[in-house]
Amino acid sequence: MNISKFVMPEIIFGLGSLSQIGDSTLRLGASKVFVVSDEGVINAGWVEKALHYLKGAGLGTEVFYSLTTNPKDFEVEQGVQKYLESGCDAIVAVGGGSPTDVAKAIAILATNGSRLQGYEGINKISHPLPPMVMVPSTAGAGSEVSQFAIIVDTQRKLKMSIISKSLVPDIAIVDPELLITKDAKLAAATGMDALTHGIESYVSLAATPLTDIHALNAIRLISRNLREAVQNRRDMVANTNMAMASLSAGIAFSNAILGATHAMTHQVDGLLDEHHGEANASILPHVMEFNLPACPERFREIAEAMGKVGKQMPLMEGAALAIEAVREIIADIGLDKGLAELGLENQFIPTLSRNALNDACLITNPRNASIEDIEGIFRKAL
Amino acid sequence: MNISKFVMPEIIFGLGSLSQIGDSTLRLGASKVFVVSDEGVINAGWVEKALHYLKGAGLGTEVFYSLTTNPKDFEVEQGVQKYLESGCDAIVAVGGGSPTDVAKAIAILATNGSRLQGYEGINKISHPLPPMVMVPSTAGAGSEVSQFAIIVDTQRKLKMSIISKSLVPDIAIVDPELLITKDAKLAAATGMDALTHGIESYVSLAATPLTDIHALNAIRLISRNLREAVQNRRDMVANTNMAMASLSAGIAFSNAILGATHAMTHQVDGLLDEHHGEANASILPHVMEFNLPACPERFREIAEAMGKVGKQMPLMEGAALAIEAVREIIADIGLDKGLAELGLENQFIPTLSRNALNDACLITNPRNASIEDIEGIFRKAL
Repeated sequence: MNISKFVMPEIIFGLGSLSQIGDSTLRLGASKVFVVSDEGVINAGWVEKALHYLKGAGLGTEVFYSLTTNPKDFEVEQGVQKYLESGCDAIVAVGGGSPTDVAKAIAILATNGSRLQGYEGINKISHPLPPMVMVPSTAGAGSEVSQFAIIVDTQRKLKMSIISKSLVPDIAIVDPELLITKDAKLAAATGMDALTHGIESYVSLAATPLTDIHALNAIRLISRNLREAVQNRRDMVANTNMAMASLSAGIAFSNAILGATHAMTHQVDGLLDEHHGEANASILPHVMEFNLPACPERFREIAEAMGKVGKQMPLMEGAALAIEAVREIIADIGLDKGLAELGLENQFIPTLSRNALNDACLITNPRNASIEDIEGIFRKAL
Repeated sequence: MNISKFVMPEIIFGLGSLSQIGDSTLRLGASKVFVVSDEGVINAGWVEKALHYLKGAGLGTEVFYSLTTNPKDFEVEQGVQKYLESGCDAIVAVGGGSPTDVAKAIAILATNGSRLQGYEGINKISHPLPPMVMVPSTAGAGSEVSQFAIIVDTQRKLKMSIISKSLVPDIAIVDPELLITKDAKLAAATGMDALTHGIESYVSLAATPLTDIHALNAIRLISRNLREAVQNRRDMVANTNMAMASLSAGIAFSNAILGATHAMTHQVDGLLDEHHGEANASILPHVMEFNLPACPERFREIAEAMGKVGKQMPLMEGAALAIEAVREIIADIGLDKGLAELGLENQFIPTLSRNALNDACLITNPRNASIEDIEGIFRKAL
């Protein structure tokens, strides 16, 4: 018996689709909306636009934006207090992975109470969450469609993975127009996150035919559009394709889970507070080298999707080209840095490796990894 | 502004997944379940199995199966009366497109009242429907994931298309095991329906990148598995691939809508009461010939997905191979019959053509079709 489950939100996609946020939130039964965002997105003007449409639909609003990249447990606790005081009955996020994950975490505590640490892992949420509508402003995190919320435990200095079907928002509104206010560095880092989602979910032990088609679609789109999206931030074809790629990658990893790269970057992010996508770029090629012997067919298919290999090439040779293709993209978008350059010191590797072993994302990695394996990969990635 | 919407139910897929029906229905808040099926499915033993799991989850049950292929408005009216008398608060369908569409139509009348005719067309349903769980026993209709319910208006002798997001079930449970009790003829006809869904949604004017990947996935799987599934009804690889193909095609057409083939077969079905898949087989190649000039690139991609053509071939030549590939499959599974052989007489063509012009599926056909065009296609397909 091999039963797979697949779930995704209703999706509204396209240039100008932010205009749908009022009616969409209204038909979920909301009367007052808690809008979670961050300073960058507010300065770019997107929250003002969202509020215009929400108010136009007759909804009350309250904005919360006291949060940082790699969002922290105490920020969520401040948020939930504000939410409960505000009398809101629905949650909207406008922003990248950080506001979206904070919005989800606030939703958990709002109806389930207690501390966030109690929901770490898989399926720990028992009470239904308030209605949620998510509008991504980056093409990378995929949180607007996923079962994941990733929040830093500041005491343990690591990222907690909270995974539950309850965390899939009701509606994801993906408007590529929001991407034009991202700078090139953020476009590169978030795009690298999406590529890592696509690749890790395609080789995941929990991959299914339904997740596969989304993962390959994401890998294909990213290999053809990420360079352009980074070089020319106003190229709307590249931006729209990256928005679709991020969405597809999110749908894939939400249902197939991830692998060793994310199990490891979650620890790096918790310690260094650099952008998650940069840590992915440092670690992904090394994890791919480690994983290749476990599933060379899948790697060759990734190489094919990235335009690297014909069907005639010998298996192992074709499979290795997937890693080459990933290294080329990383170099082309300027993310070819070691973890040392991001600030990681050798002395932290044993602790990070121990914590990575406990991360839920490691369960679906295609090759079983011991603590020595993880330490070895961290050293190569330094 | 080009905004697309995409919605699908939660999906549980895999051999043995029927066992999930009890818990799945329970978590939607049900206490007593109205199970819609038909005699063939009951005789095959699947309803007994479903009831076992539903009762095991502590749910009350009531079975309704007074319905026929190409289900009729009066059958739905009997069903809704039984539903209201039964005290049920959720609806489950176990069967092919007919029980599933009847289950949806009962759900509409149960909470919205009045007559079915009032909901024909797009977005006419205003009140929420009871929770719905659908388990397909054929690989074809795709109704378990779609926004469609198709019911015969016995007075007008045509099929009404009722299209609304409310008709997307909450959960689709797709267990390929249920397919083994289908005979070869039904496997061929339903498989042909799925192929038509894949092709019409891929060339639809409302196609989007998200519907495209599902449509192509369906076309690819059907061209590689339908023959085997018809020849060897116990081939579980072919059955599982056809179950996935039908699901993917259903996701695609639910969100991209269909085209002239369905606009025309809906009329034929209402008049002749033959299997919908057979009428699709008679009409699809002729509609493809009519549509080809409007979107040759899309046709060439279909030919590629069916293994017919390399990227180097000239456009129109490659595009025409899609029609050749479809004709080959139709012949190989024994459905190469004209509409006359299904019982259609020349004299009905003007009326059928007039009604086809009013079918919602025609709106998204890639080439504008006049009543003369439709009549011409009907005559070729005779």
